[in-house]
Amino acid sequence: MSDRRVLVNLRGLLTPDPARTWAVDRIPDAALALQGDRVAWLGRAADLPAGWKDAPRVDGGGSWASPGFVDPHTHLLFGGDRSGEFNRRLHGATYQQIAAEGGGIRETVRATRAASVEALVAAGEARLRAFRERGVVHLEVKTGYGLELEAESRLTAAYAELRRRGWSFDVTLLPAHDLAPEFGGDAEANARAVAEDWLPELVRRHPGVAAFCDVFVETGVYTADLGRRIFEAGRRLGLRPRVHADELSWTGGAELAAELGAASADHLMFCSEAGMKAMAAADVTPVLLPGTTLFLGMRDWAPARKMIEAGCRVALATDFNPGSCPCLDPLTILRLGCLQLRMTFEEAFTAMTLHAARSLGRADLGHLHPGARADVLLWDVGEMLEMVYWVGEPYRPRFIQA
Amino acid sequence: MSDRRVLVNLRGLLTPDPARTWAVDRIPDAALALQGDRVAWLGRAADLPAGWKDAPRVDGGGSWASPGFVDPHTHLLFGGDRSGEFNRRLHGATYQQIAAEGGGIRETVRATRAASVEALVAAGEARLRAFRERGVVHLEVKTGYGLELEAESRLTAAYAELRRRGWSFDVTLLPAHDLAPEFGGDAEANARAVAEDWLPELVRRHPGVAAFCDVFVETGVYTADLGRRIFEAGRRLGLRPRVHADELSWTGGAELAAELGAASADHLMFCSEAGMKAMAAADVTPVLLPGTTLFLGMRDWAPARKMIEAGCRVALATDFNPGSCPCLDPLTILRLGCLQLRMTFEEAFTAMTLHAARSLGRADLGHLHPGARADVLLWDVGEMLEMVYWVGEPYRPRFIQA
Ligand SMILES: [Zn+2]
Ligand SMILES: [Zn+2]
Repeated sequence: MSDRRVLVNLRGLLTPDPARTWAVDRIPDAALALQGDRVAWLGRAADLPAGWKDAPRVDGGGSWASPGFVDPHTHLLFGGDRSGEFNRRLHGATYQQIAAEGGGIRETVRATRAASVEALVAAGEARLRAFRERGVVHLEVKTGYGLELEAESRLTAAYAELRRRGWSFDVTLLPAHDLAPEFGGDAEANARAVAEDWLPELVRRHPGVAAFCDVFVETGVYTADLGRRIFEAGRRLGLRPRVHADELSWTGGAELAAELGAASADHLMFCSEAGMKAMAAADVTPVLLPGTTLFLGMRDWAPARKMIEAGCRVALATDFNPGSCPCLDPLTILRLGCLQLRMTFEEAFTAMTLHAARSLGRADLGHLHPGARADVLLWDVGEMLEMVYWVGEPYRPRFIQA
Repeated sequence: MSDRRVLVNLRGLLTPDPARTWAVDRIPDAALALQGDRVAWLGRAADLPAGWKDAPRVDGGGSWASPGFVDPHTHLLFGGDRSGEFNRRLHGATYQQIAAEGGGIRETVRATRAASVEALVAAGEARLRAFRERGVVHLEVKTGYGLELEAESRLTAAYAELRRRGWSFDVTLLPAHDLAPEFGGDAEANARAVAEDWLPELVRRHPGVAAFCDVFVETGVYTADLGRRIFEAGRRLGLRPRVHADELSWTGGAELAAELGAASADHLMFCSEAGMKAMAAADVTPVLLPGTTLFLGMRDWAPARKMIEAGCRVALATDFNPGSCPCLDPLTILRLGCLQLRMTFEEAFTAMTLHAARSLGRADLGHLHPGARADVLLWDVGEMLEMVYWVGEPYRPRFIQA
């Protein structure tokens, strides 16, 4: 029984309760019993069951314990750099202007198409390490900067290699991240290539790597109708939809996600109230990305409170990407969730743990109840709330792991 | 001549030019000649004057060099803690509601009145150290959580002691930070006590410690008329005005600052266009505090672009305080200046260096031109802009100092 141990000397333990939508357990003077890579028991140290009294102790150092963060929306892999564009934007150019001139995502597409699998893996591993140092133990990661079969295939191969190296994430295929330059703006022909050619071929070449597919449903990119066609093709390949929805304007993205029974609808700054109700009824997770609102200098924060009131299990994510949110810090997102989306600390914390994991179908992540993966973070704070309160301070967790 | 040395091996040097309002020098492959605690020359390493060729070298390690940040608005000293209130606010209570119930600033006033000079000095020194680690080499610091003569006097004594220990800052007396509970809401009687009793006595007891005085001109606190009376009393004592102005509503604070020839008007989220023009004409520095807008979850960002267009030399500050902005990170403010106030990187950088220093009458701070204090920061970045671009990453400078 050498894999049994008890984490003791904890100031407290904070974890969402997976049996209830928004309830957070706050246990002072806690202990956590671990068996192998799983949580076996949690509670007050004084209540530790008799069978665990003789198990080896791990010293928590008087810290607070929490589950690791889960980031349910990142564009982890891309080539190149966008700081030149960033300065142009600060001098007044809009994101859409830069895109219309062939900059923006097009620049990243060129650099990504030119990158080898090895270069993508090296960049990806450095980013995964940075996420982990900041407390993120599982992520959703997308392809999408290839916009053609071969480059999308290299991105998928790079994710397969990163998974072989032991990193924990779920892959989403996003060849419909934008219109590919080769199609001259013919969205319908582009959607047909994605649905009938690229997605089937990516799944054939890389079986078991991807679990989801995604489409950028937006004015000037893919309509809801073209999105539906791509998502149905993905569904036949075993890929569940996640939708880039209602980000820059209302396009019915939330409604589409509900109709398709998508795992998530993401961004949603311009979501309709009907869309919120539809998501709640269809159990679609709204994934909100306030870092992008901050970085693009927008004033339209996603209506998190209305979604929670409509019955949605809101999740928060970084949207890590080079153009609209170069942020791999869950704490920045947690703070924006509290301060600008007006979530309580407990809600924002649940949104970056339990609900984020749930949108990925990961019932064993985002909490520390029995059966959960033993990704325990230790925080040197008096109260967990301090991490949000001391705006701008970088807190880093220590890890207790299987 | 052992105090002469040349900083070499710099990837580049970025500094505002004190002779021009918004010009930033960006010098690649730079060198910086220092004599004693002063900058003697700056330029490309290849152009180093002959007289400096034999001076000892200091290795810049391939970093970017910049002047230290100046923070022109902080409430450095206070007692107690406000995280309980913070959680209440996240659960829906407004800052004004909490204040009306005797929480908020009243809670901090109680804790500050109970604190000894020694306790205030210890807390203040820890905060000054944190500011310095983040690149802030000079600050404006306020009294104001005493709201009575004896507590304000202990705060002033604590600042005198911190200065004796070598910390670099300017002190502002702010006994008119709020209405004192003892006056039962009688703002006029409270203003009379501040103007006729407290300010003269503080200056008599602590000669030479303070350079400025400040009043919270706001609906429900001090009217512009009462503010004027206090500022005129301060002026007779040699204290130049800085004004908490137009923060929660328009109260003519910017206009008052211009009329008085104040050093600064601070906050200004609800500043009028007439106020902006008046500040530009009277050379009042608008000090903008976007961290407070973020922390209070407000949507009313100060109109920085309009102020720049009106001819104002805008400065940026943290507003460090326990209730509305627990932030001692200049980088967070620089990012908000760029991303939400829509300043260019060069403008935001100038606002946290040159214009911040200028509002304090410190011509030798906030730049690295000849005569400047040799507070040089070294940054391990490819381009200085990266510090803003990588949102949420904590960059820390190294120091080259006299
Ligand atoms: Zn995205
Ligand atoms: Zn203030």
